[in-house]
Amino acid sequence: MHAASIETLIEKFARFPGIGRKSAERMAFYILERMSEEDASQMASAILDAKKSIHFCSQCQNLTDIDPCRICGSQKRDRSVICVVESPEDVNAIELTNEYNGLYHVLHGALSPVDGITPDDIRINELLLRLSDTAVKEVIMATNPTVNGTATAVYISKLLAPFDVKVTRIAHGIPIGSDLEYADKITLIKALENRQIM
Amino acid sequence: MHAASIETLIEKFARFPGIGRKSAERMAFYILERMSEEDASQMASAILDAKKSIHFCSQCQNLTDIDPCRICGSQKRDRSVICVVESPEDVNAIELTNEYNGLYHVLHGALSPVDGITPDDIRINELLLRLSDTAVKEVIMATNPTVNGTATAVYISKLLAPFDVKVTRIAHGIPIGSDLEYADKITLIKALENRQIM
Repeated sequence: MHAASIETLIEKFARFPGIGRKSAERMAFYILERMSEEDASQMASAILDAKKSIHFCSQCQNLTDIDPCRICGSQKRDRSVICVVESPEDVNAIELTNEYNGLYHVLHGALSPVDGITPDDIRINELLLRLSDTAVKEVIMATNPTVNGTATAVYISKLLAPFDVKVTRIAHGIPIGSDLEYADKITLIKALENRQIM
Repeated sequence: MHAASIETLIEKFARFPGIGRKSAERMAFYILERMSEEDASQMASAILDAKKSIHFCSQCQNLTDIDPCRICGSQKRDRSVICVVESPEDVNAIELTNEYNGLYHVLHGALSPVDGITPDDIRINELLLRLSDTAVKEVIMATNPTVNGTATAVYISKLLAPFDVKVTRIAHGIPIGSDLEYADKITLIKALENRQIM
């Protein structure tokens, strides 16, 4: 039905995670109906510019426009702690708390046998290489509390056993501000298991 | 927190309707983490190509790469009926039924005093100009059954009163396959009002 160039645009947008055919259509029509030529060309440039200027930090593997990235290059960060996360968004979420001052390591995924994601597909080797730096005293596993995230944390903690570092896992429990009544069973079990003296 | 070029990209994507900051971030990171340079450059080209090749049909105002569009230019379509819709997606939805063989007119919006959308902002004048063609016998108002869509249908039907055309409105009622129990009150009232002899 659509002209070929509209169809091509819709197909490109539909490749984004979480964007279905309907949303992709809405995005394409927004560009064609509502955007000026200049706005559309700025959007195209933004894609090309970001793709060209952004690379992986050679140390923490996070996305960055300089190498090492601002966090790895900062003199103010505590170099004795590395927090291991699955994605750049996770780094962002932790930075927004303003409570963590250590370094990061971004795996870019989690182990997933079902999807064929093996240790070679995520940046585990790069993490091991960083541990030759004897300054590192602790590695915090902050992968997601999903089956894949937990399996990744366990797998990496085993790999780190020969190194002289403490390996820790972020706490799981009832989220602050939520209602106990609506917590799922496994979260509730974790919250009870990990109870603390008041 | 993000590098400037990532932030720019996120802001561009967040302008799409229905795409919030979180989804825009996910889209930007998908391009940076998962797409090849070539794929990213193809996406940028798709935006530019579509924007360059797609224009409004001089007759029905739908998006098209040729003028008149395939529907307005077709010898097989019934030129005595014009179906007035809000958006190109609506044309597509009706075409997919394979049951309508007339022409269309795309308004590109609906009247909305709250959002400051007046008759001059949608393509009503272009519709009036088409009615000088005496071949047109019926105009079907197929704007959405929302407050704005209905107001637009009523407004246009009044404008069309001086012309020698029949103005009709698509039927509203209980959708096929749905459950009466879950129909909203206004739909149910419409369904009762517009009951037909079996």
